[in-house]
Amino acid sequence: MRVSVIGGSEVDEETYGRAREVGRLLAERDHVVVCGGYGGVMEAVCRGARDAGGHTIGVLKGRDPEAGNEWVETGIATGLGDARNALVVLNGTACIAVDGAAGTLSELGLAFVYGRPVAGLGTHDCSAFDGFKAVETPHEAIAYVEHEAE
Amino acid sequence: MRVSVIGGSEVDEETYGRAREVGRLLAERDHVVVCGGYGGVMEAVCRGARDAGGHTIGVLKGRDPEAGNEWVETGIATGLGDARNALVVLNGTACIAVDGAAGTLSELGLAFVYGRPVAGLGTHDCSAFDGFKAVETPHEAIAYVEHEAE
Amino acid sequence: MRVSVIGGSEVDEETYGRAREVGRLLAERDHVVVCGGYGGVMEAVCRGARDAGGHTIGVLKGRDPEAGNEWVETGIATGLGDARNALVVLNGTACIAVDGAAGTLSELGLAFVYGRPVAGLGTHDCSAFDGFKAVETPHEAIAYVEHEAE
Amino acid sequence: MRVSVIGGSEVDEETYGRAREVGRLLAERDHVVVCGGYGGVMEAVCRGARDAGGHTIGVLKGRDPEAGNEWVETGIATGLGDARNALVVLNGTACIAVDGAAGTLSELGLAFVYGRPVAGLGTHDCSAFDGFKAVETPHEAIAYVEHEAE
Repeated sequence: MRVSVIGGSEVDEETYGRAREVGRLLAERDHVVVCGGYGGVMEAVCRGARDAGGHTIGVLKGRDPEAGNEWVETGIATGLGDARNALVVLNGTACIAVDGAAGTLSELGLAFVYGRPVAGLGTHDCSAFDGFKAVETPHEAIAYVEHEAE
Repeated sequence: MRVSVIGGSEVDEETYGRAREVGRLLAERDHVVVCGGYGGVMEAVCRGARDAGGHTIGVLKGRDPEAGNEWVETGIATGLGDARNALVVLNGTACIAVDGAAGTLSELGLAFVYGRPVAGLGTHDCSAFDGFKAVETPHEAIAYVEHEAE
Repeated sequence: MRVSVIGGSEVDEETYGRAREVGRLLAERDHVVVCGGYGGVMEAVCRGARDAGGHTIGVLKGRDPEAGNEWVETGIATGLGDARNALVVLNGTACIAVDGAAGTLSELGLAFVYGRPVAGLGTHDCSAFDGFKAVETPHEAIAYVEHEAE
Repeated sequence: MRVSVIGGSEVDEETYGRAREVGRLLAERDHVVVCGGYGGVMEAVCRGARDAGGHTIGVLKGRDPEAGNEWVETGIATGLGDARNALVVLNGTACIAVDGAAGTLSELGLAFVYGRPVAGLGTHDCSAFDGFKAVETPHEAIAYVEHEAE
């Protein structure tokens, strides 16, 4: 299945490593990564997925399909600016959030609007929403979204 | 100025009353209400504003500019579905959130992305974000956004 | 009713004058002008409408609701770039096209997608589409859209 | 490179065959097909490309990434309705138009807005626009977009 991975565009090394592991694990289990296509968590998850031979889709704010990070395999230009956040979560069957700031909060909200299950790894507390589970590790994140979405 | 008022589409009587008072106070102070145009908080705030002779803009999900609640003065059809949430917050200089569920969470996130000050009246806790203030009354909400945005 | 007026952003004096007259006539007949909010035909039609005490809505590409020409009364920021062309035609019950280049061609196509009647004043030849009529004067343009849409 | 192929959603057998050949030729020359993802020309071009082992991207109006025709390899849900036409042309370096009605006309306009070269195969006459060339065969269409875009 496709999993939308959302999170901060500027992250520390530890968070980068966790997001990269999320990408690697998703690819190993034949899931496709969908993300916003830029830096931080978006870069890390694409990189991890590609390391493991997986597929990655970057849904970009701007007009240039090539403007994503180098581990985006299929870049989709939207030209919509931040309104493209809706498309990031729409294109995954489930969502994993790693860290993240305001953009991630908007994507979490949209994920619940669209009824997507969300595993949260050190992200905003969304325990008030059905379908959200705070998890501790990349493995748990993937186990949760697989259980909920498949 | 324009103030985006966001919040739940299904609310209890007390919340409806508070949102209506927000609308009335905004209109009395010559602010224009921008909202999502449908029911609940969106309806109440438009109604309160129109009661006081104010102006209201409803940024709608669908294709019909007339599909908003009856207190929407200027309905804007977007046809964008929930991606229109970005436009709701983009069109206000500041934001007041009353109650609200997943859609409101996405709008809060987008408000912070766009750097809008947000007064929260019984809404999601966003105290981690600069520019957010939890308030207790409609008066406080308006005082806060006026102070921050003007 | 609302009439979307579309056309070139850079026009000669004669075209500017015609578009301004379209705006004036629409306002005199209590129609609201919807347009893309920038220069050329968009400016002229807003200016004509405001001269006659009418209302104007500018659906803008960017994020700033104040970025429209000075005769836009209600500016709507979309942040969608050229994808906002869809919203320009969606928000009118009918459409008048004056002159125009590539952006106008896209709006003409979308007007037919949405089933809007279109009066064309020196614009692209769309006689292959139902609902299009090439006209010679602003008066004829308004007579046509009134007849078709009301 | 990526080539956006646009055209009618309901076409006769001959047009379907031509669009399918466009897809086949694009894939044989290692180009990726981008299209609107539904029926008619969109289906035919995806089918032709997949027959030849190529890649296809369908940029869809609705919310379901699986709603494209069966030859869409990567479906992208937008939820934007017809505003997604902008994304169809934005994601190709060049454009080939086969037949087509109002939606195609809007995409042609947007292609010129974005400066994309367009080969037209039995489509609307756009000879007034720089970058447009009316062609007679799928081979000519591909030769033209390769020449202009690479």
